[in-house]
Amino acid sequence: MRYTSAEEVNLALVRGLFDKVLNPMDSSAVDRFIAPDYIQHNPNVETGREPLKAFLDFIRKESPEAVHDVKRMFADADHVIVHYHVRRWSGDQGFAVIDIFRIENGLIAEHWDVSQDVPVGGPNVNGMF
Amino acid sequence: MRYTSAEEVNLALVRGLFDKVLNPMDSSAVDRFIAPDYIQHNPNVETGREPLKAFLDFIRKESPEAVHDVKRMFADADHVIVHYHVRRWSGDQGFAVIDIFRIENGLIAEHWDVSQDVPVGGPNVNGMF
Repeated sequence: MRYTSAEEVNLALVRGLFDKVLNPMDSSAVDRFIAPDYIQHNPNVETGREPLKAFLDFIRKESPEAVHDVKRMFADADHVIVHYHVRRWSGDQGFAVIDIFRIENGLIAEHWDVSQDVPVGGPNVNGMF
Repeated sequence: MRYTSAEEVNLALVRGLFDKVLNPMDSSAVDRFIAPDYIQHNPNVETGREPLKAFLDFIRKESPEAVHDVKRMFADADHVIVHYHVRRWSGDQGFAVIDIFRIENGLIAEHWDVSQDVPVGGPNVNGMF
């Protein structure tokens, strides 16, 4: 078996975050997935759960058609890693993101991410995904 | 036990890549870690093993003092994920990188990454790591 039962639960939690929070950009669903004392490492957002809700409301207003297109997902003990492509509108070149989530007591307790614009052209023919 | 024996082998291979190839920027050690038909997804480098060697020679010349400071590493079956801080010179703010490596037959067969400059200041007090 590839995953422990705890890892399966963590993967399901993070899939739920993408399906119920990030893709619909629904701040009202945040508390089902994110711990009250959430530690944020994204440099553009204040730490904590409430600033994440404000950020979701902001991006929903700015880019109501945005999609978070998950390409691959991994689990290792209490961490889940997700590689995905954000496109803000139809035809957007978008950006590549890798998130690392740490899960504690059934909720996401800490988050790191790295984000990069997907370039047009360049020497690599395989694409970023 | 957290990792399978295959995962332990994969983690050791990627640790070796950082210790013997990336940190010394030593293109002569690449063949011990990277498959001949290496699939590269970094948008700035051509696919394959030989272009990786040329890229290492280039960055070694450009930034001979660069360090790849590994912050956390994960394994999931045939994939290893590494989160690290590249600093090109002493005091460099540098950039955050997350690599995903796929290992096949004891060598790194495929690689995706995302890279982002570490900002000065901003609303988040925790830092990117």
